[in-house]
Order: sequence, then structure tokens, then C-alpha cells
Amino acid sequence: MAITEIVDSYNKHVKKIMDFNESIALAEWDMRTGAPKKGIKQRSEVVGTLSDEVFKRSTSDEMKGYIDALTDPAVQDQLSLVTKRMIEDSKKTYDRFINIPSEENKAYVILQSEAQDVWKEAKEKSDFAMLQPYLEKMVAFKRKFIEYWGIKKNKYDALLDLYEPGVTVKTIDQVFDKLRKGLIPLVEAVAASKDQPEKAFLSVPFPIEKQKALCLHLLKEIGYDFDAGRLDETEHPFEITLNPGDVRVTTNYQETDFISTVLGTIHEGGHALYEQHISRELVGTPLCAGTSMGIHESQSLFFENFIGRSKAFWSCHYEELKRFANGQFDGISLDDFYRAINVSQPSLIRTLADELTYPLHIMVRYDIEKGLFNGELSVKDLPGVWNEKMNEYLGITPNNDREGVLQDIHWPGGDFGYFPSYALGYVYAAQFKNTMVKDIPDFNVRVGSGDLKVVTEWLSKHIHQFGSLKKPLKILNDTTEEGPNPNYLLNDLSKKYSDIYRL
Amino acid sequence: MAITEIVDSYNKHVKKIMDFNESIALAEWDMRTGAPKKGIKQRSEVVGTLSDEVFKRSTSDEMKGYIDALTDPAVQDQLSLVTKRMIEDSKKTYDRFINIPSEENKAYVILQSEAQDVWKEAKEKSDFAMLQPYLEKMVAFKRKFIEYWGIKKNKYDALLDLYEPGVTVKTIDQVFDKLRKGLIPLVEAVAASKDQPEKAFLSVPFPIEKQKALCLHLLKEIGYDFDAGRLDETEHPFEITLNPGDVRVTTNYQETDFISTVLGTIHEGGHALYEQHISRELVGTPLCAGTSMGIHESQSLFFENFIGRSKAFWSCHYEELKRFANGQFDGISLDDFYRAINVSQPSLIRTLADELTYPLHIMVRYDIEKGLFNGELSVKDLPGVWNEKMNEYLGITPNNDREGVLQDIHWPGGDFGYFPSYALGYVYAAQFKNTMVKDIPDFNVRVGSGDLKVVTEWLSKHIHQFGSLKKPLKILNDTTEEGPNPNYLLNDLSKKYSDIYRL
Repeated sequence: MAITEIVDSYNKHVKKIMDFNESIALAEWDMRTGAPKKGIKQRSEVVGTLSDEVFKRSTSDEMKGYIDALTDPAVQDQLSLVTKRMIEDSKKTYDRFINIPSEENKAYVILQSEAQDVWKEAKEKSDFAMLQPYLEKMVAFKRKFIEYWGIKKNKYDALLDLYEPGVTVKTIDQVFDKLRKGLIPLVEAVAASKDQPEKAFLSVPFPIEKQKALCLHLLKEIGYDFDAGRLDETEHPFEITLNPGDVRVTTNYQETDFISTVLGTIHEGGHALYEQHISRELVGTPLCAGTSMGIHESQSLFFENFIGRSKAFWSCHYEELKRFANGQFDGISLDDFYRAINVSQPSLIRTLADELTYPLHIMVRYDIEKGLFNGELSVKDLPGVWNEKMNEYLGITPNNDREGVLQDIHWPGGDFGYFPSYALGYVYAAQFKNTMVKDIPDFNVRVGSGDLKVVTEWLSKHIHQFGSLKKPLKILNDTTEEGPNPNYLLNDLSKKYSDIYRL
Repeated sequence: MAITEIVDSYNKHVKKIMDFNESIALAEWDMRTGAPKKGIKQRSEVVGTLSDEVFKRSTSDEMKGYIDALTDPAVQDQLSLVTKRMIEDSKKTYDRFINIPSEENKAYVILQSEAQDVWKEAKEKSDFAMLQPYLEKMVAFKRKFIEYWGIKKNKYDALLDLYEPGVTVKTIDQVFDKLRKGLIPLVEAVAASKDQPEKAFLSVPFPIEKQKALCLHLLKEIGYDFDAGRLDETEHPFEITLNPGDVRVTTNYQETDFISTVLGTIHEGGHALYEQHISRELVGTPLCAGTSMGIHESQSLFFENFIGRSKAFWSCHYEELKRFANGQFDGISLDDFYRAINVSQPSLIRTLADELTYPLHIMVRYDIEKGLFNGELSVKDLPGVWNEKMNEYLGITPNNDREGVLQDIHWPGGDFGYFPSYALGYVYAAQFKNTMVKDIPDFNVRVGSGDLKVVTEWLSKHIHQFGSLKKPLKILNDTTEEGPNPNYLLNDLSKKYSDIYRL
């Protein structure tokens, strides 16, 4: 068969897998945005059946045939870059799955769905014991899978690679150590400052309907395309891509904490912009997706922190905000508003943490995951270790597991190795911003005049358009000419918080 | 292999088909309730991929093996009733599909999609000639398919059987003739009445948010379980079952026609109650679904017409309605409200027709479908025959084809044989009600006191619980001890409208 025919046939095979994946994504979106609870168990079985199809097709003899044919060195110069990257990913998936018995994979997917359900109730009741057996099974599955992949040592690296290909414990340890050493004294200085900003006016009730209208407006302002997406309400905000023309976001409205809602929405909007701006040339291929969790998070955090928490952005949008609000900002200056939305204080809930303390929350989770998978910790130890680490890094201890170890959906969802990307992404974001400001010296003026187009175009040009064509560290290097470096973030935060807290 | 092992394996095979069907249903629900437009084309490809899986598995050699093994007369006494009914349906589907050449089926599916597209434009332009060649091809395909099924005579019976198994032209002719002969003079008497009810107050704007709250409330009142369903907004209301714990309904809010919204919601609620009340023993089998279009419609119409349009129901809920409304009912008595929501008048559009004239709209379509498939009519005759029949049955003639023969999507969608179930269901509903009132002599008192539990329990006991275990005419016979008989409906309507119009 001619190589073009093989490529054609391979593309069709992959497209079918993508169709199944889209069905799975829709089922998940639906389960999180309002599927009735009595239907969830059966829906999980549907997800199991569909995942099984993905699994079978990703590990079939047919797929093996494509991999063998298209990784043959003799044909490489006949392949497009897109095909080369596709087959590389197909091979990685194949190698990862081929040794996992399909029954075990299906059981895992069903467990994953059930564990997330149990987590909801366990969190409500602040009852870690309810969730513990599910987490234990989940960790056992993951450890077994890693062994199936042929990895005996540094198991946690294998998990990190799922979310941030190329990044290892060694790199993260270096980045996080430096970051932590810089952050802890800054957090302490902020806490000790005599000039604490007033922020009570942020808690004045802000009607949900008005918040909805505000969020829809701000998403449009940052360039989110509502013909290719929608905004829904969920407990835990997220972005999910069904296909390149259907990139959805959700948010969680809170009447007395509208700023969390607004910044959360902008955060998910940042993820969505990445997916909406991927080059049309990659549509219909699996490369039409963000390249890694870390790069994805760099985009959401760029928008949340460097846009949504900036004085420039609000100098443009503060008057609008006042129109949506109930008059509670009438006597509040832009400067006071800006200081209020940037109040930093050690707190218990990651998703509510401010940008300064946020990376420390991640480090608590990173240490625990590393311990769980490298054999130094058991699931039953989690609540205790969690509380110790919180005290060590942030100087506070949760009163119960709901506001401690049970707060996140990631572990019941099986997403071990995911958390570090949040902080890595933040490090990347500061690196990208540093480079961007060299290219757009009037960055603040542009943002302050509501002209975000130049910003999103820069991001599209350097990051978004490539989808998964470039790997994360390549994107970082091509754009910033270095690897992960926490100094830019530390500088930015130090400057910003010295100003806000008059340090 | 032991028969129990075959049954086990067959159940698993069927369950997988059901999982794919649930994914398709979710995709369709999503496309109709708010999927972003730029993602629709790709979503349709997903539905295509999943449908293909259903088709392959329904006609596979594996399925053939189960059918051969489980329809063998020698094993019948080892099979449960559930398995017998399941394999009967599997065989029916298999036989229907296996003889159609796959190229012809593909061509048909493409034509179907094109015809619906053309229909939209033809309807807009009121141009039947545009649609005519597509309808001609559609009818030709259907006729050929029926021949592939081995049916030479009474082709229309084969189409009726798709929607109402066991019901034939002979039965429907008898039922519809009698019904028409009773309805036409009643419709004329109503039109001639000197005592026409006032109904302008129904068009006073009713805020959408209040309508939503009212619909949610009334759905709860009729027993709809929101832990196993949800209410959304769509242009055309519908009920869709994803699984037995996830039975969704939609409605269309109209600010100046709230009563259509309310009755439409109750109608879909009636469909949903049927699906929500199917015996837990059938969960996980394809029998866990309404048994036919007609029986389904009997449940929706029972709730819409015999509950939602009854004086008893509103004697309980009218004061509540006033609380949701804007004061427009303050001077309106219950009796005047009841008369207003039951105003009857010949009209052109089926979906907007009142309960008295509705069956006549169906008979126009039935006569035409029968003529088309039994060879007495050609597609080109349709507009003329439509207008004649409308005049004959309802005394009015459409001014153009948009409000005539082009109004429904059913024919361009290939759904010939579907329409009669709407009117049959209405006939069944009246028969069920007649029997129910014998068992619950204080029916009106119960409904009037808001006690619908006794009603839904009766429906569950006689109809809902069986799902598709019993065929439609068996359910009707077991419950009412006779076949389709329009006299009960005629009596009910005659009594009701003589009262409302003081005949």
C-alpha cells in the first residue's frame, strides 16, 4: 500500500477514536452540569463502554500496523510534521496501554466515576473514611498500571509525564524549592504589613443574575467565542473541549464572593482561548488540543492573574463593574478595589487561595503525591500529612477534612500527577509575560484601554496555534529561550505585593 | 454452551448497544438544548460513528448466533418472559436491517438529511415543488425497503407496525371513521354556539421566569421525579430517555401564551412518568422503554387533556397559578379560566390545534400516507389532497403550503406511519380513563384535592410498569378488556364541550 493510503486509513482510524472521546467528554460535561443523580450510575457504565472502545482501538492490531508502518525510518521524509507528531502520540498511548488488560481498564474507568460520586458525599459529610477505600483502589490501580508500563523506579515521574511530558521530579524539585524559598518570606512579610487593604465591600451581596451577565460580558471582552462554546454553572469550575467548535466553560456563582466567580470565569476563559485558537490545520487530528496541563494552566493563569488581577484591566472595566453591581462600589476608588482583589492571606481552600499563596497549596499536594507513589506514604496517612504540610508551608491547619484533604476532585478522579502543572503553569505564565512585554512594550496601556486583541494574538502566535504540535518544554524554550525558571514569577510577585502592602 | 451462558452473553451484547444508544440520545439532547453552533457539524459525525456501531452490532454474526440459539423452539421453556420478548425484538430489528443493501441504506440516510434541509427552505418559501422530488425519492426508498422486508401487499401496514406494532389499516380505518363521524358535527356545533368563552386574558404577558417556576412546580405535582430528570428549554418541547434514572423533558416558554407552555410541559411530563415508572426488573434491558408511540402518547395526552385541561385539576391549582402570575387572573373566576383554556376552533397548524380538532388533523395525514403507500396517490397530488381534506374535515383551507402540507418535519424525515399514533394514543387514553374511573370512583375529588398519586399508581400498575414487555394492544386489552374503541373519547369530548359551549 502506498504511504499516502496508509496515512489516510490511519487518519480515519484516529478520527473514530476522537468521536468516541467526544462522546465521553459530553457525558462528563453532562454529569457535572446537571445530570440527574439517579442516572449517574448507568451513565458511568456508558463512559466505561465508550472508553473500552477507545482503549481497544488505541491498542488494536490495526493501530499496531499503522505505528509500525509510520515509524519506519525509511518513510519519515514522506510524512508531514502533523503525521509524525500524531504517530508519536499514538505510539506512546499504545505502549502505555498495550500491557493493561482491557477488563482492568474498564473496571478502573467505572471506579473513577463512582469515586467522584462518593467524594461529593464524603466532602459534604467531611468524612475521609468514606472515600479512603476508593482512593486506595485508585492508587493501587495506578501503581499497577505504571508497572504494566515497565516502570519500576520513580513511579511518580511516570504520572507527571502524563500531564507534563518531559518534566520530572528532579526539575520540579528544583523549581518548587526555589519558589517556596522565595514565597514563604514574602507571604510572611505581607501578613506582617501594617497596611492591610480593606476588602469588606467585596462581600456585599452581588445578585447571581448580575454576576452571570458580568461573566458573560467579561468572557466576550477577553475574546471567548460564544458560537463555539457556552457558560454553565458547576460547583467546581472547569473548561472542557468537545470539539474545536465546542469549547465549554463553567463557573460557580457565589453571592457574597463575586470576585472569585469573576476571576474563576476568566481563568477558565483563558483555557478556552487556547483551545479556540488552535490552527485550523490541526482540526480533525488529536493534535488539536492544548499540548500539556502546564502550558494550559499558563494560559488560564495568565488571564486570571496577569489580566484579571491587574490594575490595567480594571482601569478599563471598573466602571462597567459598577453598572452591574448594586451600588456597593460607589465610594470605592479603583486603587482601593485593586488592592482589595489582591488581598493575600494564608487560607485553607486551594481554589479560593490568592495568587501569592496558591503555589504553596500545590506544593502540599505535590509532596503527598510524590510520597504516595514513591512508597513513603499510604492513603490512610493523607489527612494527617496534609494538615502538617499546610502548617509548615502556610502556617495554618484545617479544622476538618472538608476544608483539608477532601477539598479537591483530582484524586478521586484518578488525576495523580496533575497538581504540579498548576504551579508550573504559573511559572511558565510569568516567563511568557516577561517575553511578551519585550514585544509589546505598551502592554499595560493596551490592557488598560481594553485592547486585549494584541495580547491574545501574541499568545496565539507563540502558543495557541500549535496545539499539541510542539511539546511543552519546546514551546517554552522557543518562546522564552530557557527552561522552567521561577525567578520571573518571584520578581513579579515581589514587586506587586511590595506595592500593594507598602513593604 | 449452556442456555444460561448464551443468555448472559446475549444480555451483555445488547447492553453495549444500549450504551451506544444512550450516548446518541445524550448527543441529541445536547444538540437541541444549546450546543454551540460551530460544533454541530462535528457532533453529527459523532452520532454517525455511534449509529454505525449500533447498526453493526444489531446485524452482526454474533447477534445472528444469539437469535438462532434463542428462537429455537426447543429452548423456549428455559427462557424467561423478558428474554423471549428481547430476542423477539432483536430478531425484528435484525430482519429489518439485514436485507437492505448497505449502499442503499447509506443513500437513504443522506437523502433523509438533505430532504430535511430542503424542507426547511421549502417551508420558508412555501414552495412544495422544491420538496417534491425529495419526497418522491423518500417514498420510493421506503416502498423498496418494505419489499426487502418481504412485504408485497398492504405496504402501509408495514410502516404502521414500526410505530404501533399489531395495528393495521383495517383497525385504524374503523376507529378513525367512527371518530370522524362523531367529531365533525361536534366541531360544527361548537363553532355555531352563541356562548363563546372569553380568552384574551390568557395572552397577557406572563414573565418567563415565573413560567419556569410554575412548570417546575406542576411537574412535581404530577409526580415527575427531578432526581431522575430535568427540565430544559427548546424550540419544540420533547421528552427523551437517556436511561431509566435520567428521563428529561423540555418546554418552550412563550411570554404571551403561557397556557401552551404549561400544557406542553404537562404533556412531556406524561411521557416522562411512563418511562420513570417502568419496573426495576426491566432496567438494563431494551424493554425498559415505552412499548409503542401510541401507548406513549396515551400517557402524555392523558396528563395534558384529562388532567391539565380539567376543571378538577385547576380547582386545586388555580390559586397557585394566580400567585405565579402578574395579577391578570384577579378578576377571573375558575369557571371562566377553565372555559378559556378549552376554547376550540378549527385551525391550520396541527401542533397548535386544540384537543377537540386535533384528531382531524391526524386523519388528513393518515389518509394521505395510506394513499401514498397503497398506490392511490402520488407525491405531486399532496398539496391538493391536503387542502381538500382540511376543508372536508375542518371546514378551512390553507392559504399556502407553509401552513398546509409543508408544516410537519415527519415526511421529509422519512417518518411515514408515525402520525396515526397521535390520535390512537388519544383514543387509548380515553379508554384507560374510563376504566380508571371505575376503579377510582372519586377520581375528580382526588384530582381536585391535588392527590394525583392514586392516578399515577393506577397508570403504573396497568401500563407503566410493563415497559415493552407487553405489546400495545395487549396492554389495552388487559386493562380495558377491549381493542381500540373511539366511543369513550367521543363521549368524553361530547360531554365536556356541551358543558363549555352550553350546547
